[in-house]
Amino acid sequence: MRILVLHGPNLHALGSREPEIYGRDTLAGIETSLNALARELDCEVESRQSDHEGVLIDAIYQARGRCDGVLINPGGLTHTSVALRDAIRGAGLPTIEVHVSNPLTRESFRHRSLVSGVALGVVQGFGADSYGLALRGLIGVLRRVA
Amino acid sequence: MRILVLHGPNLHALGSREPEIYGRDTLAGIETSLNALARELDCEVESRQSDHEGVLIDAIYQARGRCDGVLINPGGLTHTSVALRDAIRGAGLPTIEVHVSNPLTRESFRHRSLVSGVALGVVQGFGADSYGLALRGLIGVLRRVA
Amino acid sequence: MRILVLHGPNLHALGSREPEIYGRDTLAGIETSLNALARELDCEVESRQSDHEGVLIDAIYQARGRCDGVLINPGGLTHTSVALRDAIRGAGLPTIEVHVSNPLTRESFRHRSLVSGVALGVVQGFGADSYGLALRGLIGVLRRVA
Amino acid sequence: MRILVLHGPNLHALGSREPEIYGRDTLAGIETSLNALARELDCEVESRQSDHEGVLIDAIYQARGRCDGVLINPGGLTHTSVALRDAIRGAGLPTIEVHVSNPLTRESFRHRSLVSGVALGVVQGFGADSYGLALRGLIGVLRRVA
Amino acid sequence: MRILVLHGPNLHALGSREPEIYGRDTLAGIETSLNALARELDCEVESRQSDHEGVLIDAIYQARGRCDGVLINPGGLTHTSVALRDAIRGAGLPTIEVHVSNPLTRESFRHRSLVSGVALGVVQGFGADSYGLALRGLIGVLRRVA
Amino acid sequence: MRILVLHGPNLHALGSREPEIYGRDTLAGIETSLNALARELDCEVESRQSDHEGVLIDAIYQARGRCDGVLINPGGLTHTSVALRDAIRGAGLPTIEVHVSNPLTRESFRHRSLVSGVALGVVQGFGADSYGLALRGLIGVLRRVA
Amino acid sequence: MRILVLHGPNLHALGSREPEIYGRDTLAGIETSLNALARELDCEVESRQSDHEGVLIDAIYQARGRCDGVLINPGGLTHTSVALRDAIRGAGLPTIEVHVSNPLTRESFRHRSLVSGVALGVVQGFGADSYGLALRGLIGVLRRVA
Amino acid sequence: MRILVLHGPNLHALGSREPEIYGRDTLAGIETSLNALARELDCEVESRQSDHEGVLIDAIYQARGRCDGVLINPGGLTHTSVALRDAIRGAGLPTIEVHVSNPLTRESFRHRSLVSGVALGVVQGFGADSYGLALRGLIGVLRRVA
Amino acid sequence: MRILVLHGPNLHALGSREPEIYGRDTLAGIETSLNALARELDCEVESRQSDHEGVLIDAIYQARGRCDGVLINPGGLTHTSVALRDAIRGAGLPTIEVHVSNPLTRESFRHRSLVSGVALGVVQGFGADSYGLALRGLIGVLRRVA
Amino acid sequence: MRILVLHGPNLHALGSREPEIYGRDTLAGIETSLNALARELDCEVESRQSDHEGVLIDAIYQARGRCDGVLINPGGLTHTSVALRDAIRGAGLPTIEVHVSNPLTRESFRHRSLVSGVALGVVQGFGADSYGLALRGLIGVLRRVA
Amino acid sequence: MRILVLHGPNLHALGSREPEIYGRDTLAGIETSLNALARELDCEVESRQSDHEGVLIDAIYQARGRCDGVLINPGGLTHTSVALRDAIRGAGLPTIEVHVSNPLTRESFRHRSLVSGVALGVVQGFGADSYGLALRGLIGVLRRVA
Amino acid sequence: MRILVLHGPNLHALGSREPEIYGRDTLAGIETSLNALARELDCEVESRQSDHEGVLIDAIYQARGRCDGVLINPGGLTHTSVALRDAIRGAGLPTIEVHVSNPLTRESFRHRSLVSGVALGVVQGFGADSYGLALRGLIGVLRRVA
Repeated sequence: MRILVLHGPNLHALGSREPEIYGRDTLAGIETSLNALARELDCEVESRQSDHEGVLIDAIYQARGRCDGVLINPGGLTHTSVALRDAIRGAGLPTIEVHVSNPLTRESFRHRSLVSGVALGVVQGFGADSYGLALRGLIGVLRRVA
Repeated sequence: MRILVLHGPNLHALGSREPEIYGRDTLAGIETSLNALARELDCEVESRQSDHEGVLIDAIYQARGRCDGVLINPGGLTHTSVALRDAIRGAGLPTIEVHVSNPLTRESFRHRSLVSGVALGVVQGFGADSYGLALRGLIGVLRRVA
Repeated sequence: MRILVLHGPNLHALGSREPEIYGRDTLAGIETSLNALARELDCEVESRQSDHEGVLIDAIYQARGRCDGVLINPGGLTHTSVALRDAIRGAGLPTIEVHVSNPLTRESFRHRSLVSGVALGVVQGFGADSYGLALRGLIGVLRRVA
Repeated sequence: MRILVLHGPNLHALGSREPEIYGRDTLAGIETSLNALARELDCEVESRQSDHEGVLIDAIYQARGRCDGVLINPGGLTHTSVALRDAIRGAGLPTIEVHVSNPLTRESFRHRSLVSGVALGVVQGFGADSYGLALRGLIGVLRRVA
Repeated sequence: MRILVLHGPNLHALGSREPEIYGRDTLAGIETSLNALARELDCEVESRQSDHEGVLIDAIYQARGRCDGVLINPGGLTHTSVALRDAIRGAGLPTIEVHVSNPLTRESFRHRSLVSGVALGVVQGFGADSYGLALRGLIGVLRRVA
Repeated sequence: MRILVLHGPNLHALGSREPEIYGRDTLAGIETSLNALARELDCEVESRQSDHEGVLIDAIYQARGRCDGVLINPGGLTHTSVALRDAIRGAGLPTIEVHVSNPLTRESFRHRSLVSGVALGVVQGFGADSYGLALRGLIGVLRRVA
Repeated sequence: MRILVLHGPNLHALGSREPEIYGRDTLAGIETSLNALARELDCEVESRQSDHEGVLIDAIYQARGRCDGVLINPGGLTHTSVALRDAIRGAGLPTIEVHVSNPLTRESFRHRSLVSGVALGVVQGFGADSYGLALRGLIGVLRRVA
Repeated sequence: MRILVLHGPNLHALGSREPEIYGRDTLAGIETSLNALARELDCEVESRQSDHEGVLIDAIYQARGRCDGVLINPGGLTHTSVALRDAIRGAGLPTIEVHVSNPLTRESFRHRSLVSGVALGVVQGFGADSYGLALRGLIGVLRRVA
Repeated sequence: MRILVLHGPNLHALGSREPEIYGRDTLAGIETSLNALARELDCEVESRQSDHEGVLIDAIYQARGRCDGVLINPGGLTHTSVALRDAIRGAGLPTIEVHVSNPLTRESFRHRSLVSGVALGVVQGFGADSYGLALRGLIGVLRRVA
Repeated sequence: MRILVLHGPNLHALGSREPEIYGRDTLAGIETSLNALARELDCEVESRQSDHEGVLIDAIYQARGRCDGVLINPGGLTHTSVALRDAIRGAGLPTIEVHVSNPLTRESFRHRSLVSGVALGVVQGFGADSYGLALRGLIGVLRRVA
Repeated sequence: MRILVLHGPNLHALGSREPEIYGRDTLAGIETSLNALARELDCEVESRQSDHEGVLIDAIYQARGRCDGVLINPGGLTHTSVALRDAIRGAGLPTIEVHVSNPLTRESFRHRSLVSGVALGVVQGFGADSYGLALRGLIGVLRRVA
Repeated sequence: MRILVLHGPNLHALGSREPEIYGRDTLAGIETSLNALARELDCEVESRQSDHEGVLIDAIYQARGRCDGVLINPGGLTHTSVALRDAIRGAGLPTIEVHVSNPLTRESFRHRSLVSGVALGVVQGFGADSYGLALRGLIGVLRRVA
């Protein structure tokens, strides 16, 4: 079982960017933890970060046939990208939306997610732990269906 | 470590109510699974379901001093109860909002959560698994802070 | 054939409360008339009034298996209770929404009904007669389907 | 006692038009049933269908002095015609709004009725039965007042 | 002269709940002060707190004939309960809305009060003193009218 | 100089329809007064009333080449008819919007006029006198331009 | 019979200010014409222009007992001043709202008039002629009532 | 194969009405071109223009059984007529919405089309050519399905 | 202790202006009562009424250093003046908002107060008594803090 | 004559992505058909697909001087990209907006097109045929102008 | 070259009023700096502060013929005054809007500027430096045009 | 001192694109002027233009440690990109928003800036001069803080 983990714009700066909101865990640290958890759950993860909407869309389609599901933290595109939403639905892979912070406690333009409407599930607000919970949740759903 | 698990209106009917949306797991089944997970995570859970907003509010305050955190699936009150939001903030316990379905894929009046704004984190859309993920997430945050 | 008749908050005060809007018929009088009509239509009605949302929700679920349909005048909860809407859909019984007055001729916050979207039919504005018309309508639909 | 029954745009096609929403009863069938019920209730009904707003408005004024009340299913004009609303109020006859389907379970542009604000009562969602219930309701109110 | 004082959801926690907003006065302290003021003003007060909308509604109707007016701090129900509004209007007693904090300086969902529209007067933002001012105001109006 | 005077839906009932709003002047009386004023102003008026949007639109186009301007009281179509607005602009004749009552003191759906945006001027709220003022105003503008 | 004519902010600049919208008539010219018309109609007018909301409000109250009605062109205050509206209602004199241009053909923030809701009538869009029409209209109404 | 071509309010004036928006092609010219194209595409067209909503609705139903599809330019009714939308859905014929101009570049009240939601396709902005493109498109779809 | 009492536009007319809303107490009467209460509470009040926003703003700043707090009834400026709000915050004196009527029971444009967001407390709806209650409340808060 | 055909995000997946909405035609198939049609119409087309907003913008500017017009299916960017709109207007080439599906029959966030406001024409809802119709329409307009 | 510098309500209090937002520079200090810069730029400035909308409007018109441009910081009137906007457009002088703070980072009612729509340019958020930048910008534009 | 100057989508076309809005200055010309000004102000600027949101985001982060501040003209992304806003806040460099035109005088979708809320200051509407003013303003703020 293979899971694509996508990190959208600004997430390369996790750890140094607004740590009072996003915490001090870096993307590298999160990926190390996720890999450890993946081994425990007997699956593989491959990760990709990009500040380009187009790169994220391409990556989602390229996962078809190679991966069984997607974890995505779309960053600021969460609230503005119909194209990303279309890609998730278009590729047809079970997808979980992840956020480090809880957007609903922040500015009102962060209260609408265009991605949630096509996501199987959402995990947000647990800091860096959100990724691990989302991976567990996705693997659980995939195993139950399989 | 002790966690209060609150289920709001209509959740006693899980399993038989609109299973195409909420799945076939019953509340009893969910509680059995949660207790098993609690043992694994070395904590205790106590559960309560009520169709009464007032009962839920009272339970949240009574947990002060006795519990370390709260998991709550507020059901339909998610979208309408300022009083419940006030209770969560008033009692001051770390609280996770849980939903079996993903409300953001449903009617527009389910897109606003009054509870999310005072919740530490949110887990939704994983069916009955949402509870277990939320418990893991909450215990993780509590252990890290402690 | 057995019909549950539910009266929401404030309806115990029918007859004495704002009679220029709600008329002078009391709840007791309405129930006497409904029982007479039920005999004529060869069915039974059982009635319940409560000012508690939770009691109404519980009553709706308890009618499953015992009743064939529900008449409900949700009072002020019409406009604010997602939980009540969820109960009507969750219990799955054919349900008619009844109002003594015509809410659409009153304040704008009474123009949205959360209940109508899950009701089979709506009867409003005929004063105390609304109940009898709704009972006829519900029995008619149930007999046609049966 | 004499009642004008008005059917607005598209209602000539009842029975063949979107039967999954409007059912299979035809306008002719509805009128036969209404006439039978009128005899039972000791009153007379005269019916008119038109796809023209202007014809409906004229008919409402011509009923003054000749009829005691109006049943109207305004069809799509329900949501768009201030002129029809003005005619109902202008003619001053007690008027009941009738719908075969329950508009509140459909598209959002059907959720606002310009007619309800000047109607004595509303009956909707009982399929073809809505007309009979509305006639009973109107006659009841007229007899009580008389 | 006898006044019913009603405290809505969460108000039992006054003093310990978010003291930076609600201050450190407890409900018991407020009631002691109110009783002293009542003696000074030559009237009696009876107090009730409940987290249940239904209990508050019932209490308002039971005051008819026994009390001359109502002070109510509806807590979070201020912004969401049409049923409570209906009870205040239905019971017909002169009613004053009281708030410890000034809701208009807080979240936007606290800016709409469903209760204000049926209240004789409003006092908010004076901390625990709001109750005493409201009692003076209510007694003043009642004495002037009598 | 020749002016077309158009009266929209419901205006045939002026005098008998809601006189507390529209006054007791009849359409015949208004036309007599307008004719007298026309003679004084040395122009001719021709009048038409219809409850049909289509008839009004046709009349506006037929006035091209035959009339120098239009007075129109669009009745309830004021607020709902883009087609009527298009006709006024399409025919290209200077047009004055007239109302017997002042719509801005009435229901909110009367606050938007689709016609005003293509009208040269607006006169409203003077009862039957609105027509005469509008005629004077239109003739004044036409004479000044000529 | 004596009429107060009030000109709000910016109207001293009529004739030189945006003539493509407001025309080339000056305030002095308008007042000369209005005085001539007043003699014809056997009444007196007194005029006042001010860029100060407070001066306009004071003038309205000072007209009580001295004038029989008010013509007011509130300029930009039309859309923003509740205080001016309150003054018109508070002084209780029959008042006509006048505009040189037709605000409904301009920016959307000019589409709402706070004054119209308390005005007897409105005349707008006839350029400088709007004043004369409004004076005729007001005198007509006052004579009819007297 | 037979296609009904419907032209709504104001379209008889094409060519002379606001040519800077709608161009200088007349309805007669458009019909000549459409007939020529129909021969080329081996189908027949019949055309109808009316300023009456009711006539258009009737024409749509009368096409059932006689025509294979509908081209409609609803003119100003595009934005206001639920009844016309209901007729298109009710008759069940494949329908294309056509506009000479591109309404989305014009006033905001032209940005919402009630018809588009039930149309198979939309062609707008090509001037008189919009009709020919729409006919080609409709014939193409019908031939593919057949 | 010295309190500035400010009365905004139209308040000079209290007693004669719309007495069914504002009562029959005059401003002079209110000031006599306030002075008596001030002596009882051992403080001084100075009062100012103006119809000019600018005068009110100036007065608020001039009170700095001379007064300990402000009572303000901003009249119609309540709903429209950001400048007044800025002055209250800018001067930094504890300020109470007072209204004779309860604006929340009136037109919707009176439901938003720009002043409440910077006021310590609000008293409204007690008629002329609102001032006395507000003075008591303000003195109470000032004494507690001192 | 040379036309640039641009396909925005997700369109490389046409044929395999949500075929119940977008049909089974692939982008390659569409381009083959378009090339054939181009030969018939005696023009050339060059096509480009990209999931990157920036690539599309660059391509539009690069077409200046080389192409005579643009066909663009902006995919999800239709509803969110002001930058793309600016590019179309900035480059100044006649542009047609094309959609395979009819966005107005889908989610509400697809009802607003930022591109339509700068497009010469729009063709949508004809499946893969939309492209051919748009090409015909564009060539027709270009030939007429030339 | 002569520039009018206008400071609206509350700006006399710069330096002492909410310094965490507006900084500690006083109006006198700002004017000293502006005069120095004016000499450097070889122009003259004259300054005026008023809390009265009417005074500001009058000053703008009086600058016609005497000044070449206007710098205005409208304070709280920025968001509420149509009359001030009309004066800027009416006087026809090139005008720059200046703000010490950046209103778009503050309360939502500060996000709409009625003045920006008629301003040549806007400078905001640079503290007291905003004035100097605006003066440079205005002189630059005036010199280029001259 | 080193400043990054970023130009967003479409800005490479300055000078040739819609010159009636954006003027005839080219990006090369603006950069020459900015470099000259930078020498005068004793600082360095480096410039970058991209039509790709991702490239702009990357550039902002890469400036951390190398530059002291950012000037950004986000073009059409101003109104749509949460990701760009997040990058500005995330990188933490003092940032000035620049626009050649004044967006508040244009289409309503240009009235909301997502960037302003995280910008230190805004300069807009001075044509190509906006950049120089912004550079002066930024250097001024940086020197004062240093």
